[in-house]
Amino acid sequence: MSGTARNLTAVLKKKGELVLEDTPIPKPGLNEVQLRVQSVGICGSDVHYVVDGKIGRFVVNSPMILGHESSGIVSALGEGVTSLKVGDRVAIEPGVPCRMCSYCKEGRYNLCPDIVFCATPPVDGSLRRFYCHAADFCYKLPGHVTLDEGALLEPLAVGVYSCRRGGVQLGSNVLVLGSGPIGLMCLLSAKAMGAAKIIVTDLDQGRLDMAKKLGAHHALRVDTQDSEEMARRVEAALGCKPEISIECSGAEASTQTGIYATKSGGVLLLVGRGRYHLLLPIVNAAAREVDIRGVFRYANCYPLALEMIASGKVDAKPLITHHFPLEKTLEAFETSRTGAGGAIKVMIHCDQ
Amino acid sequence: MSGTARNLTAVLKKKGELVLEDTPIPKPGLNEVQLRVQSVGICGSDVHYVVDGKIGRFVVNSPMILGHESSGIVSALGEGVTSLKVGDRVAIEPGVPCRMCSYCKEGRYNLCPDIVFCATPPVDGSLRRFYCHAADFCYKLPGHVTLDEGALLEPLAVGVYSCRRGGVQLGSNVLVLGSGPIGLMCLLSAKAMGAAKIIVTDLDQGRLDMAKKLGAHHALRVDTQDSEEMARRVEAALGCKPEISIECSGAEASTQTGIYATKSGGVLLLVGRGRYHLLLPIVNAAAREVDIRGVFRYANCYPLALEMIASGKVDAKPLITHHFPLEKTLEAFETSRTGAGGAIKVMIHCDQ
Amino acid sequence: MSGTARNLTAVLKKKGELVLEDTPIPKPGLNEVQLRVQSVGICGSDVHYVVDGKIGRFVVNSPMILGHESSGIVSALGEGVTSLKVGDRVAIEPGVPCRMCSYCKEGRYNLCPDIVFCATPPVDGSLRRFYCHAADFCYKLPGHVTLDEGALLEPLAVGVYSCRRGGVQLGSNVLVLGSGPIGLMCLLSAKAMGAAKIIVTDLDQGRLDMAKKLGAHHALRVDTQDSEEMARRVEAALGCKPEISIECSGAEASTQTGIYATKSGGVLLLVGRGRYHLLLPIVNAAAREVDIRGVFRYANCYPLALEMIASGKVDAKPLITHHFPLEKTLEAFETSRTGAGGAIKVMIHCDQ
Amino acid sequence: MSGTARNLTAVLKKKGELVLEDTPIPKPGLNEVQLRVQSVGICGSDVHYVVDGKIGRFVVNSPMILGHESSGIVSALGEGVTSLKVGDRVAIEPGVPCRMCSYCKEGRYNLCPDIVFCATPPVDGSLRRFYCHAADFCYKLPGHVTLDEGALLEPLAVGVYSCRRGGVQLGSNVLVLGSGPIGLMCLLSAKAMGAAKIIVTDLDQGRLDMAKKLGAHHALRVDTQDSEEMARRVEAALGCKPEISIECSGAEASTQTGIYATKSGGVLLLVGRGRYHLLLPIVNAAAREVDIRGVFRYANCYPLALEMIASGKVDAKPLITHHFPLEKTLEAFETSRTGAGGAIKVMIHCDQ
Repeated sequence: MSGTARNLTAVLKKKGELVLEDTPIPKPGLNEVQLRVQSVGICGSDVHYVVDGKIGRFVVNSPMILGHESSGIVSALGEGVTSLKVGDRVAIEPGVPCRMCSYCKEGRYNLCPDIVFCATPPVDGSLRRFYCHAADFCYKLPGHVTLDEGALLEPLAVGVYSCRRGGVQLGSNVLVLGSGPIGLMCLLSAKAMGAAKIIVTDLDQGRLDMAKKLGAHHALRVDTQDSEEMARRVEAALGCKPEISIECSGAEASTQTGIYATKSGGVLLLVGRGRYHLLLPIVNAAAREVDIRGVFRYANCYPLALEMIASGKVDAKPLITHHFPLEKTLEAFETSRTGAGGAIKVMIHCDQ
Repeated sequence: MSGTARNLTAVLKKKGELVLEDTPIPKPGLNEVQLRVQSVGICGSDVHYVVDGKIGRFVVNSPMILGHESSGIVSALGEGVTSLKVGDRVAIEPGVPCRMCSYCKEGRYNLCPDIVFCATPPVDGSLRRFYCHAADFCYKLPGHVTLDEGALLEPLAVGVYSCRRGGVQLGSNVLVLGSGPIGLMCLLSAKAMGAAKIIVTDLDQGRLDMAKKLGAHHALRVDTQDSEEMARRVEAALGCKPEISIECSGAEASTQTGIYATKSGGVLLLVGRGRYHLLLPIVNAAAREVDIRGVFRYANCYPLALEMIASGKVDAKPLITHHFPLEKTLEAFETSRTGAGGAIKVMIHCDQ
Repeated sequence: MSGTARNLTAVLKKKGELVLEDTPIPKPGLNEVQLRVQSVGICGSDVHYVVDGKIGRFVVNSPMILGHESSGIVSALGEGVTSLKVGDRVAIEPGVPCRMCSYCKEGRYNLCPDIVFCATPPVDGSLRRFYCHAADFCYKLPGHVTLDEGALLEPLAVGVYSCRRGGVQLGSNVLVLGSGPIGLMCLLSAKAMGAAKIIVTDLDQGRLDMAKKLGAHHALRVDTQDSEEMARRVEAALGCKPEISIECSGAEASTQTGIYATKSGGVLLLVGRGRYHLLLPIVNAAAREVDIRGVFRYANCYPLALEMIASGKVDAKPLITHHFPLEKTLEAFETSRTGAGGAIKVMIHCDQ
Repeated sequence: MSGTARNLTAVLKKKGELVLEDTPIPKPGLNEVQLRVQSVGICGSDVHYVVDGKIGRFVVNSPMILGHESSGIVSALGEGVTSLKVGDRVAIEPGVPCRMCSYCKEGRYNLCPDIVFCATPPVDGSLRRFYCHAADFCYKLPGHVTLDEGALLEPLAVGVYSCRRGGVQLGSNVLVLGSGPIGLMCLLSAKAMGAAKIIVTDLDQGRLDMAKKLGAHHALRVDTQDSEEMARRVEAALGCKPEISIECSGAEASTQTGIYATKSGGVLLLVGRGRYHLLLPIVNAAAREVDIRGVFRYANCYPLALEMIASGKVDAKPLITHHFPLEKTLEAFETSRTGAGGAIKVMIHCDQ
């Protein structure tokens, strides 16, 4: 960093007011690294904070830096860091837990009540030139893995975690409800884990076409609110009921379809978030022992997500439809928000 | 069986019409035993069939013999039976699965689509003098275990299975919502499995008193429909959120309480059945990874239920509040239906 | 079956005396099908019975029909069979459990003490023209799956089961010790389950070449009895210790290597059988929590094995190196025993 | 701490040379507390280091402070500590892992390669007046739990972890091989978890008597090296084979007995450590799928161990047979080493 180094940063001042401004360049603390941030993907949650100023219990009450799907290049080492060196290209797992509570000690650090997670109020995110992060939550990228792919590990980790919680394995039949970026990451993960047949649903034909391109065996457009009818179509297309359904839209009808469609003894994962209360055919789920399992971020999934990309088992690059420099962050968010030009994943490049 | 043997039987001719009449004495088939039925407990489902003529998708379309919580004495052996002999006192596990489908082969025989389960339409039950059953689903009772206790193994097996599905173990904190007979069996099971603290809820103070008598650490009367408030009271009484909640009422507000009350990363079991659709705070469950697991009967639980009784770890006898001979079946059902005299478990004695 | 139908059969009269002779054509019993046997693979155990007259506690005390890796075409239906029809091409899972013991009911039917398993003394096998088998242990083959592949499902099921017991999944690093037919099936299964890297060992370079051809990332020739040195070479080649090691040779040094090589907290599967007692560095395993798990046949693995073949995820055909008609069974066994001509899997064709 | 505070400490200068000397009073670092050490139990490993100067790969190459089974009273707080306050009475979990490696993040911190564990060379232990420790590995004791019991949580945690790894639960039948302090803790844990029947073995009748006193249903003296014979006696006494066997002696014959005695499909835990290589009937284990699982210390077991003591479910105090002040450490070690006076657990009191 020369004396002229400035730290251009995307700050959400309050609901609806996203600005670019300089912030201090942070210094790495104990066991941290300083990073020149490279690629940052825009997540639906980032857009939500800009548009609504909140997601559920998380409210933007003071200015917050956005961004949590990111990669970077190590620019300085804090005390105690031996696992990385300056110049290393890394993917950044954006949540750093307390390491001391029972959730952390038992391996479910995503449930740590004191986790510090990028761009979840009031914690600042990584959409800036320079950012500091715990070294052990930075994963060194092999030379052939791009920095864009490094940023994609974040949503891919959600897909990996969802499939793991659902027990997707070789030979599984899987239903993915909703084929936005997270649905597509679940599709890619399920496919890599050896799912026999994967069927996806969505309201939008363009997204379904992308799902087919990425390897879905069946793609079903949602043109009815009759969730039992949708469940019948899933079974008809698949030739059986799926053992695992992954709901990524948060919509009530879609969640109902997930219950009706899943095989007795199977699992419905709740990845998408919609209205707080949903009316669900809960007797149907209970009497057929269709377990309903929530998904909150992920734990211990970055290593596998990276291996999936590095080995070529998964190619997530087709999800990236648009690129913008950090200076054009507002345009990037507008593209992501409107889905203009078939936008799926919009990538912001933070380095000069 | 002498030539004068008759087979007095409680037949539900149709909704509302329960009669006692003679039916043929059945002969045991391959690997079956014939039993002189002894104790038969009345289950809420029996009463439902009498009153409503159906439970969910199960409809009484033709006359059906009631009864599925039962014990008996072996009176004849079918071909191939070597595990039992005439005179053996046994508890009868009332569901016999197909043994050939994937559910059966994988150890989840309660989900077998072809299971033959006593007194679930159109399958006849055991509320009669003589009844035949698969020998390997009859469990020999040690001399000190009574035939009434043998009959109680059925609802106790539901308690055992619920606690197993929830992962109740030494040190668990458990919430039981609804303290009817099944709720009480869940309480007894959780206690035997070493739960640190158990809290129960109910609308009825009498049931709560029984729960306390049976070992509940806390008993909370439900006097509000505010499920978040009830959840707060649970946490206040327990000193922490329970890791496992077992919903035994089927009521919407109670199920909501189950979600709010359960610790992040915990489990809510759905044992009770109420309205088909429930409005649930599903985002709360999903974002805190409170898993929702249905309970449909049980599998592989009779051996442990019997061990619990035989070892004295569980004393379920206090649940039996009333006794009737088979001849007074209608009176027994009326007592069970109305809960007259503080009826919890009403036991019918079939032998002369 | 015309009146001229005869049932040519390969009978092991006693140790060393394998003959072909006619036996009665069996009639299918309840829930059984009669099959015109098609392909029967020779297993190492078949050869062992011929050469030694026993394997461990299983001794050939009276004449026994050999063969248990087999496929057939349904030629008659016993009473109660609805899942199959005459003419169906099926793979035959050779063990039929009692369906009544606790192992069967809990989903571990391979441990059923009363299982009837083809060609395990005193139970007769399937190496004959006509054979009867439980219909639900016959798996209908899709048209594009060959009868040879149907026979290969048996050893493939061992591979599937071993990998399942070891928890092989997407991203696993796996060591397969011994690359005979079973080792190769473990390799194919691990690969299909998404293993990141698989390394195999063997004394024989030809087998290692086959392993490489089938997709092993590394193949290591065993040229030393120093098991710690072999473990070091495994780690050096793989770049890390494997989380899962699958021992398929039964040799002491190889089992020791499996312990030393496996990552702390990992699993060593014991699939091969050698000397009854082995000297093992048990403190090394215990202090690093390398779990040692035996593999005895398989349970619930045929459906997945079939899906793996049918979907093209696995191509097991290259393992078949030789074909013989039933009439040349002795020659087939000699080829299998000596490994002449690079024999891996020798297939006998039983239909005329 | 007044200016006159001195820190009397038990230092093992080298093999055989245990001395008491003053060491500096340590200051608590970030997230640490300083403790006035109270009770310290002598473990077999402490004695081994004194007598042999090493255990396996752990060698005493420079002076090391002994002691790892301990309780204390908080005397000062390091920066960042909010969970404890000066004066709190705590049990000390003696191993503090790195919190950053994959083992730590996945909940198996006992396998952390960088764990700092009291009195395992070269890490100093807690047998001194003042000692500092990570606050989150100190567990506050309720008023009615004694400081001696706090120290006993350490070996009890081994018992808890062993039973968890073995899956001990309500109704389990358990064999404990070797009834020294660790075997007795396994017995107490299994009993608290609801084991139906527990049988223990030992060479020494005194230890067996203690086991009976603590609740073992059967106690079997080892008077033969014939491990198959011992296994038969276990089965005869228990009336069945145990599903879980816990080997706590490390002896070869005893480990063999553990294999022979365990039910097919069950688990043998290796808790004791003896010779590095053992000759084991590995085919017997493999063919019956008796899984062999090592136990290395414990993870996440202190909270349950404390709950077991605090609730009164376990009374471990009878294991404490002798008490010494810190000044008489050498005498205490001699008592522990020789087992004089029926010594089981010898407790040293460090406070003045």
